[in-house]
Amino acid sequence: MDRDFDAKLNEFKAYLKDMEYLNASIAGLYWDSRTYIPRGGAAYRGEVLGDLSAELYRKQTSQQMRDFLDYFSAQPDLDDVTRAMVDRLRREYDRTVKIPEDRYRAYVVAVSAAEAAWEDAKRKADYALFAPHLKELIAFNREFIGYWGGGDSGYDLLLDYFEPGVTVAQLDAVFEDLRDAVVALLNRIRQKPRPDDEFLKGVFPAEAQEKFSKYVLEKMGYSFDAGRLDVSVHPFTITLGVGDVRITTSYDEHDLRSALYSCIHEGGHAIYEQNIDPALAGTMLMTGASMGIHESQSRLYENLIGRSRAFWQYFYPEAQKSFPQLAGVPLEAFYRAVNTVQPSLIRIEADELTYSLHIIIRYEMEKAIFGGGADVADLPRMWNAKYREYLGVEPQNDSEGILQDTHWSGGNFGYFPSYALGNLYGAQFLSVMKRDIPDLERRISEGDFAGMNGWLREHVHRHGAVYQPGELIRRVTGEPLTAKYFINYLNGKYADIYGL
Amino acid sequence: MDRDFDAKLNEFKAYLKDMEYLNASIAGLYWDSRTYIPRGGAAYRGEVLGDLSAELYRKQTSQQMRDFLDYFSAQPDLDDVTRAMVDRLRREYDRTVKIPEDRYRAYVVAVSAAEAAWEDAKRKADYALFAPHLKELIAFNREFIGYWGGGDSGYDLLLDYFEPGVTVAQLDAVFEDLRDAVVALLNRIRQKPRPDDEFLKGVFPAEAQEKFSKYVLEKMGYSFDAGRLDVSVHPFTITLGVGDVRITTSYDEHDLRSALYSCIHEGGHAIYEQNIDPALAGTMLMTGASMGIHESQSRLYENLIGRSRAFWQYFYPEAQKSFPQLAGVPLEAFYRAVNTVQPSLIRIEADELTYSLHIIIRYEMEKAIFGGGADVADLPRMWNAKYREYLGVEPQNDSEGILQDTHWSGGNFGYFPSYALGNLYGAQFLSVMKRDIPDLERRISEGDFAGMNGWLREHVHRHGAVYQPGELIRRVTGEPLTAKYFINYLNGKYADIYGL
Repeated sequence: MDRDFDAKLNEFKAYLKDMEYLNASIAGLYWDSRTYIPRGGAAYRGEVLGDLSAELYRKQTSQQMRDFLDYFSAQPDLDDVTRAMVDRLRREYDRTVKIPEDRYRAYVVAVSAAEAAWEDAKRKADYALFAPHLKELIAFNREFIGYWGGGDSGYDLLLDYFEPGVTVAQLDAVFEDLRDAVVALLNRIRQKPRPDDEFLKGVFPAEAQEKFSKYVLEKMGYSFDAGRLDVSVHPFTITLGVGDVRITTSYDEHDLRSALYSCIHEGGHAIYEQNIDPALAGTMLMTGASMGIHESQSRLYENLIGRSRAFWQYFYPEAQKSFPQLAGVPLEAFYRAVNTVQPSLIRIEADELTYSLHIIIRYEMEKAIFGGGADVADLPRMWNAKYREYLGVEPQNDSEGILQDTHWSGGNFGYFPSYALGNLYGAQFLSVMKRDIPDLERRISEGDFAGMNGWLREHVHRHGAVYQPGELIRRVTGEPLTAKYFINYLNGKYADIYGL
Repeated sequence: MDRDFDAKLNEFKAYLKDMEYLNASIAGLYWDSRTYIPRGGAAYRGEVLGDLSAELYRKQTSQQMRDFLDYFSAQPDLDDVTRAMVDRLRREYDRTVKIPEDRYRAYVVAVSAAEAAWEDAKRKADYALFAPHLKELIAFNREFIGYWGGGDSGYDLLLDYFEPGVTVAQLDAVFEDLRDAVVALLNRIRQKPRPDDEFLKGVFPAEAQEKFSKYVLEKMGYSFDAGRLDVSVHPFTITLGVGDVRITTSYDEHDLRSALYSCIHEGGHAIYEQNIDPALAGTMLMTGASMGIHESQSRLYENLIGRSRAFWQYFYPEAQKSFPQLAGVPLEAFYRAVNTVQPSLIRIEADELTYSLHIIIRYEMEKAIFGGGADVADLPRMWNAKYREYLGVEPQNDSEGILQDTHWSGGNFGYFPSYALGNLYGAQFLSVMKRDIPDLERRISEGDFAGMNGWLREHVHRHGAVYQPGELIRRVTGEPLTAKYFINYLNGKYADIYGL
């Protein structure tokens, strides 16, 4: 490493710092746009965000960036962080610049039209309004796959965008195991009476929910010194910079679970981001390793921990104080109620068990589109058949079927699998954590999250995006991705709850 | 205007649009930094804001900016808006690039040290800790005046920065009239008993104050569709973009006047900004004409209107409903209480009458520093003598004397006069408005602010920074700046209240 190298590295880091500050500015203004902006300010804010994003895009794809990447890619013996930084930026650079500019611009226009058409189609439950747009976006993505050098394995390249390194071959194996296990478990549960959860549907004032959610978040390990909880239409987590990771929720006064579990879920994302080593600032690695790893953290806190008996052993007395109608409800009844299984049509309302089936259906359909050349006109039929087969329910119209999610209208093919990957990663992490902390459940039942958070910080959080998901899961668990831990967890949990 | 001109103008406007978006980004993040940011995020946010500000500075002073300015300055027959845009940017450009970069950087360092020293000195009431820094900042400003080509009239150049076109010769005349009139009036008021205002110092819950303030703001003409009211340590108004002008306040539960009048004051600033013609977006003129004109609007709403009998004829019944302790207090007593005159040491706590004296003292001292070569060591003595002479009060220490304001520690010499100019401009505008709307008082007493706001929008607000303050005041009132309207107003008002 000569002086020239050091100087060049400093120059590169200054360049990246500028990009990071732009990112932080966009995040700050985006957060405001979703929480506090007055109605009249939205249109202009859109222009501002567009301008900043265009500037960020220019920096990501500039000749200067290319020169940096060429120089550092050719250097031997880079340290882990610098290597990861260069690799990550190289991936983004290649992805972007390989698409001819006029084609990318045409795509942005097509996406915008597709989003509008999807909204309309969803409202009218009329798939035909959306189909031509979906077809166009699929064609664009096929074209892009070509630029990226993908052929028959085109869907791999889409998956790789959201979950670097993950392939169809890998997902086929784990999702098949998972699907079969969940379907089998579901069929056994169906034979049993559904636990009572009516007491979760009374009237729960938003103020009381907010207070209780903040209490849970703080105890769980989310730092309000480095974050906030606000209200937005759809819950989200966003990092505005070092020491500033905010979450939002939306209160449903008629269902206690809605905001509470969205807070715990977003809290999981946020604890991850709060715990990333701040020394990674300025490397573009101060972010999650992937969508799937991020989702593993949110789902671990939300489901594996947040729907566990131990968790509620600790929090239930406070919940009863906060919500008088729980006074007469025993802990065990509450625990069963937050773990009710109920196959349904809508992904975002799905319970912990059936959620993965919603994802696997989308994965199978995307595979059919990009691998199997499925006809766009046939998709609703395919969709409905899979819902009937796996979940035993069937949409009455496309609005509660294939039109329910926004992802495809935004051109995000290959995104859905990360949700289910999150379940698998999370259970795989938890199996090792339980080995390392044998009394984990007892600690949680006493409100002591320090061991859990310390373990996650050490093994997962602090590394940010230094390791790709496949590498991370292997480093932490000594195994490649597998569905077995999540399947074992599901079988054990529901056998207990439903007396199978 | 040939095609080349049109193309160039579009190019220039695109360049300015980028600057404006940067400005809006900075404003948005700044607002967040003063209202909702978690403690842990402040340091990083400072870096982000520093980076965006540096980028804005680069754009303001680039070779490209210079080329635009040279091209357009040489064009004959520019329309008013384009001419104003070019002039304004030229002023800023010249101001900035005439200072050698290393000297400017040294100045930024000196200001930062001075601000820290001032905080320390103020806390310890020890002027000696601040004096060497003040001396250094004065020397820097003298040096800059030299770069800008100022000689004996150096202070004019400092005034001009905040209030374009205003000179010492002009201010001497109006401030002398004003000072003598206020001192004379004050001496007569001193002979009279002070009205009772104890009932304004009970306990007024923040929630009730917020509700009432929002009610008043909305009725006054501040649009919550294009703004918000939040809490910050020091009240301020900030424009985040078209359709988004926010204000903040700080509630003192033991003094009803504090937040209420800060809201009305900031509301005046904000109504101004909300009413600027949005067609000025992208010209850098979508802002107030000057500090003084801005202050004229805030003070007009706060004092000339917001402390008038007509105003409270309308709002007092609602105030009595909001604050039960006012139930037994007659309107007239309330009106007198919000107009109590009480000479005091602290500018920001001063009443409407004596406020101008605080400013004139600062003006006279700045003049002595930059025109008369006053010794920094002598300033506290000068300060105290003037307070004794004009206001009849004397600081017991420098913390409540010369150290009370932050402006000089930030290098802002020539800023103070704009506060008093606001009073004069405001009364001058009002005199014409009353001629144009003879039943203005009656309308306000009925809660009808449409006439007033319409008049201000038409004559002042919509123009943004198209006209310099001197030109604006002459266009609107047919006269140059004069103190007579404000003096007449004060004499009439206090003669009535105090029975002089």
